[in-house]
Amino acid sequence: MSALDASFPSDPALEPLLAELAATAARRDAEGGTAKHERDLIRASGLLGLAIPRALGGAGADWIEIAQAVRRMAAVDSALAHLFAFHHLMVVTPQIFGAPTQARTLMEKTLRERCFWGNAVNPKDPRLRLSRDGAILRLDGVKTFCSGASDSDMLIVSALDEQDRLKIAAIPTKRAGVRIHDDWDNMGQRQTDSGAVSFERVEVREDELLVSPGPMGSPFAALRPCLVQLLLSAIFAGLARGALDEAKAYVRGLPSEGAGRIGADPFILHTTGELWTQAAAAEALLDRAARAFQNGWETGDAITPQQRGAIAIEIATAKTVSVRAALDTGSRIFEIMGARATHARLRLDRFWRNARTHALHDPIDHKLKEIGDFVLNDAYPTPSFYS
Amino acid sequence: MSALDASFPSDPALEPLLAELAATAARRDAEGGTAKHERDLIRASGLLGLAIPRALGGAGADWIEIAQAVRRMAAVDSALAHLFAFHHLMVVTPQIFGAPTQARTLMEKTLRERCFWGNAVNPKDPRLRLSRDGAILRLDGVKTFCSGASDSDMLIVSALDEQDRLKIAAIPTKRAGVRIHDDWDNMGQRQTDSGAVSFERVEVREDELLVSPGPMGSPFAALRPCLVQLLLSAIFAGLARGALDEAKAYVRGLPSEGAGRIGADPFILHTTGELWTQAAAAEALLDRAARAFQNGWETGDAITPQQRGAIAIEIATAKTVSVRAALDTGSRIFEIMGARATHARLRLDRFWRNARTHALHDPIDHKLKEIGDFVLNDAYPTPSFYS
Amino acid sequence: MSALDASFPSDPALEPLLAELAATAARRDAEGGTAKHERDLIRASGLLGLAIPRALGGAGADWIEIAQAVRRMAAVDSALAHLFAFHHLMVVTPQIFGAPTQARTLMEKTLRERCFWGNAVNPKDPRLRLSRDGAILRLDGVKTFCSGASDSDMLIVSALDEQDRLKIAAIPTKRAGVRIHDDWDNMGQRQTDSGAVSFERVEVREDELLVSPGPMGSPFAALRPCLVQLLLSAIFAGLARGALDEAKAYVRGLPSEGAGRIGADPFILHTTGELWTQAAAAEALLDRAARAFQNGWETGDAITPQQRGAIAIEIATAKTVSVRAALDTGSRIFEIMGARATHARLRLDRFWRNARTHALHDPIDHKLKEIGDFVLNDAYPTPSFYS
Amino acid sequence: MSALDASFPSDPALEPLLAELAATAARRDAEGGTAKHERDLIRASGLLGLAIPRALGGAGADWIEIAQAVRRMAAVDSALAHLFAFHHLMVVTPQIFGAPTQARTLMEKTLRERCFWGNAVNPKDPRLRLSRDGAILRLDGVKTFCSGASDSDMLIVSALDEQDRLKIAAIPTKRAGVRIHDDWDNMGQRQTDSGAVSFERVEVREDELLVSPGPMGSPFAALRPCLVQLLLSAIFAGLARGALDEAKAYVRGLPSEGAGRIGADPFILHTTGELWTQAAAAEALLDRAARAFQNGWETGDAITPQQRGAIAIEIATAKTVSVRAALDTGSRIFEIMGARATHARLRLDRFWRNARTHALHDPIDHKLKEIGDFVLNDAYPTPSFYS
Repeated sequence: MSALDASFPSDPALEPLLAELAATAARRDAEGGTAKHERDLIRASGLLGLAIPRALGGAGADWIEIAQAVRRMAAVDSALAHLFAFHHLMVVTPQIFGAPTQARTLMEKTLRERCFWGNAVNPKDPRLRLSRDGAILRLDGVKTFCSGASDSDMLIVSALDEQDRLKIAAIPTKRAGVRIHDDWDNMGQRQTDSGAVSFERVEVREDELLVSPGPMGSPFAALRPCLVQLLLSAIFAGLARGALDEAKAYVRGLPSEGAGRIGADPFILHTTGELWTQAAAAEALLDRAARAFQNGWETGDAITPQQRGAIAIEIATAKTVSVRAALDTGSRIFEIMGARATHARLRLDRFWRNARTHALHDPIDHKLKEIGDFVLNDAYPTPSFYS
Repeated sequence: MSALDASFPSDPALEPLLAELAATAARRDAEGGTAKHERDLIRASGLLGLAIPRALGGAGADWIEIAQAVRRMAAVDSALAHLFAFHHLMVVTPQIFGAPTQARTLMEKTLRERCFWGNAVNPKDPRLRLSRDGAILRLDGVKTFCSGASDSDMLIVSALDEQDRLKIAAIPTKRAGVRIHDDWDNMGQRQTDSGAVSFERVEVREDELLVSPGPMGSPFAALRPCLVQLLLSAIFAGLARGALDEAKAYVRGLPSEGAGRIGADPFILHTTGELWTQAAAAEALLDRAARAFQNGWETGDAITPQQRGAIAIEIATAKTVSVRAALDTGSRIFEIMGARATHARLRLDRFWRNARTHALHDPIDHKLKEIGDFVLNDAYPTPSFYS
Repeated sequence: MSALDASFPSDPALEPLLAELAATAARRDAEGGTAKHERDLIRASGLLGLAIPRALGGAGADWIEIAQAVRRMAAVDSALAHLFAFHHLMVVTPQIFGAPTQARTLMEKTLRERCFWGNAVNPKDPRLRLSRDGAILRLDGVKTFCSGASDSDMLIVSALDEQDRLKIAAIPTKRAGVRIHDDWDNMGQRQTDSGAVSFERVEVREDELLVSPGPMGSPFAALRPCLVQLLLSAIFAGLARGALDEAKAYVRGLPSEGAGRIGADPFILHTTGELWTQAAAAEALLDRAARAFQNGWETGDAITPQQRGAIAIEIATAKTVSVRAALDTGSRIFEIMGARATHARLRLDRFWRNARTHALHDPIDHKLKEIGDFVLNDAYPTPSFYS
Repeated sequence: MSALDASFPSDPALEPLLAELAATAARRDAEGGTAKHERDLIRASGLLGLAIPRALGGAGADWIEIAQAVRRMAAVDSALAHLFAFHHLMVVTPQIFGAPTQARTLMEKTLRERCFWGNAVNPKDPRLRLSRDGAILRLDGVKTFCSGASDSDMLIVSALDEQDRLKIAAIPTKRAGVRIHDDWDNMGQRQTDSGAVSFERVEVREDELLVSPGPMGSPFAALRPCLVQLLLSAIFAGLARGALDEAKAYVRGLPSEGAGRIGADPFILHTTGELWTQAAAAEALLDRAARAFQNGWETGDAITPQQRGAIAIEIATAKTVSVRAALDTGSRIFEIMGARATHARLRLDRFWRNARTHALHDPIDHKLKEIGDFVLNDAYPTPSFYS
């Protein structure tokens, strides 16, 4: 745990979970596939209820705490942190897009059955269709990049109806006709199970459709893409810190002669200081962005476009700095650790591979342009699935 | 005022003062010399009492607020912000190095007479000597880089005694034998009056000597160099933001065709976004460092070396990011504003010149090495005048 | 002279000229205005005939040599190097846009009368018009950014005729009605005399109009913008090297204790090495680009669009690297020299100011986009005044 | 083949070999281990004789050509390029450290038997010892990081004798007692077979000992570390170009909608241009360094320390720029290609993995310090195995 972590509150269930994930992260990066055992550890930790209000029996954590929990998890295992983050996003999606009763029912079910949520939402893939067959609604087609669908209990699914309108439903993953393709085999974020899900005549009940789907549905709904970006930023901030922590642990584990030589090299110390400042900047901006988001969240439907825009800019700022910190740190820790750290068995390249893979969705060049548009033209990002 | 500023409290006297400084900053950068009129505006604002406890009649502002005030002032005039910051440092120096009665007497005098403090402390210049002539103590010699000595009312002076021990005194600037050389003519920070001060048989009373001089004198005294660094960081963070604000104002002031062309150029927007993220990172880290410092300040002599070390690392982190933000922004705002912004009359190069000049004391390469030494070797910076 | 310079041929008249320019460069940067004495030194050196074929009595230097001469001059005085470079560009403009007899006549006149050429070409300023008044052609209006017009003997002038067609003429500067406004007062490139020129009923003879004006006039004419860019790149490469040379000379001139401390600091050595690699990259790419350009020049009107495009890409590559090297070196040499190098009298900030000012015309972001378009889309830059 | 390659001569056997290596590079990166089939293709190409003088039947290529051949090969397969480069280094090692007859005999054998040379030289591993057992010399112990030892025909071996003096021998790999450990399994440069070699009572003949071992043995011998660095630089320059070529090929291979979207994105074009300029700078500096080295090589034992120093600085400059180009390009090509390029099957992360692994021997921070020491202090790098 770094000095900086001390200032953040955290659920007591988090530390032991992180220790278990850390112990096997390198091995599981090699294996890829679904981390069934670790997902069950997360289920058992009770942390899947972090975002659920206390009134419903959840932990009632705010997004500042949740972002920190995601960041902490990403420092040891950014793939599972992604699944963990997206779970919280999906859990609150009925609260954002649905009716109050939908949210309440699904949150209670989540706590009762320790549901792990996954998604089949990818807004760039239009092939999943919702059609009406008499009184029955059916899903047919496929969605790609469905992080967390494998081994999930509930799914948030987006589809286009016969009029090409966006529809969003919350359904059990085991519903007949849903098939998870274990076809995710990427160079990074290997255990995010971000493969395809196909649907064949999958029945959807009316009350499973969220009543106000999409980020344009209401002022409050426009915060959902901000939440996505906030959680993604937390993963990058965690990757940066995690890579540096790992480098430190590696050097500490060397025979004393090697560790002493590294610890006395002015350029290695300089590089280490450099990476530390980047991680610290990412964390400080993440924390500030999370506070801004939490304020917005609590404002609810009363939030103005200007307030929403200012939050989006804060998060875009945090994301930009976090992405760069994660990429640079993932690559440069080797300059601290030296040549022997490249042994394949150690899989110390996983921080770079994870950051590199994760950073390609919604590139920061476009975030920087949005920020510049705000600064020079007072223009706020238009709410969409990405901004 | 930027969106980010809204979250920081500030003294109501600050805004009008900033407006007056901003109106003449470019002209005064051209003129150089002592900003007598503006220094009197600062005196009149009452802000020289910011750091003085309420119990003594001061504003009792904490260092979080003072760092923000310095940052805000540096955004419009980094030279006067330097004098303003160092004033607060000198005002609390008797509290740090002296006896409680010394601190109280001098603070009360400061409020009563609206004293502006300057310094003749430069620890790298050993030519000023304190000698005993019977019952009388005398200063003879010279100090260079005495920011804020011109037009000051009180001076903190450091000298070596006959045994080469460091002595620190607080004396009135108008004491017989003190001569301020108006010999500061630099490419940047032009109104910091950082020239030489010579002393010829200057009498010093015993009770003007601070009883415990130097950062090694006590655990609490070791915080003084942290405070120096914190205040310097605030100046850099202000320079970054100020340069970007100025670029925005410049573009806004262009004929609409020119402003429109700039506001539609994806690369200019990208550059603007880039500079924004740097300024934001500097501010977020400055804020965090100021909070850490304030905690340490309140801990007083009970502070442990580990706590002091952690604070020093937080501040070094903020300083590194701030220095880079200020230098990069000072240079790259021209890529936003375009060729016509290079007209000599506009003096828009002053942000770079100020940052460049200011950054050469205590280079960040050494800060980064210190941070790396902390990360890899658990070594804290040794307290000195610079760390 | 750096180790790298040894490999380049150079005119024996160059070295003594450079020494004279170097001796007064800092003072003249302070003064601004027209460097009449130094321009006369250049006239006297005979180097104004570098680009004129030997058959006409000139030096017959190729563009590789001329680019090197410009680079060398820019290392000591980038403002005069700009005037020197643009002189050569203007001297060959009749060869590019005019009839052979026009070129021959003007080149012979140039040698005979030691003419220094200036320009009033700025293609972005449409206010200068050419109109026919019976048998007489007249220029009326104004052009801004006319580098080198002051104290020039000949001018290349561009104007739009009554049908908004581009016309280019070569006329003596002392022609009645031409007025040079000494209104250039910028933060950098201060002695480039890049102010406005106004024309009031200025007569132009038919045979002073170049017959094929503009870069689209012929395959060979499309090389002129490449030549502009090549010469500009040479200035940036020279600025980078010159700043580093100056830093070295400054350190060498320090008392031995100061020089020794600097020469032993690993981070200062690292920074120095960093700046060296940038200057070296700029020089190596400049040299390669000059060779490519010279090949194209010798190919003449037989050059294909593909060949022209490849040359433009080589030059854009050299320019991008050179601009960055000049900006970074101009700023970071202070990290080598230390705080005392900021004394205003030394004017060591002139390298940054010159690079910063000079880099704002035709920003490298657009060059990088052009290069990317070539790499990904096989698209060559469209010939224009800037590409 | 890039536009820039056209200017370099190359052996006609090179192109078809590169095509064969390119076709299987991704698959073989996955497999790791010894590339027996491809090593035999290299043997069959005749290119193993590139560095052998024509008088002895070799190709008599100069080091400019060989560096280019290595660079070209590294663009498609940097692991085999490493083996290919080190082969040439080993082939000329008897010429550098040995007697003329030793060199001649071994070169003739190399051509006759198409020998592929490997090494067991690692100067940082002192565990291999040479001892005299009556009239017989014996090697006992182990060497790590023995690139190219697997499947080699000849080995250059370094060991310490009973007086801890460095000894270097050239022996057949199949000599009794030599055991190649196939224990190289790294995240990058996977087919360089850089594992350990152990020696058990391995006989060495007197005439197999090179008579003047080590870079301090003669002025000419001091060029060997320069040659090592030159060849390593060529690999990095090739990696940068190869990654960019691969990104281009990937985009070209996309469905036209995807390729069109990428080719129209200003930021992607900008990034592409950025990477191109880095690769071009690396190539231009490599070419210049190779020319400088070739001059030194031809000067032979008459070379002065100053000349050798200047060559070492040229090569250090090329290496620094090449390493950075390779690392940055290997990571950033994904910003051109997009998220789908992270599919594990494509192994497009191999450019970064190869550059990252390869760059950790002899870090560029130390090269930059050496360059700075030359610039500020006129100090040349001391010849050693690394400088």
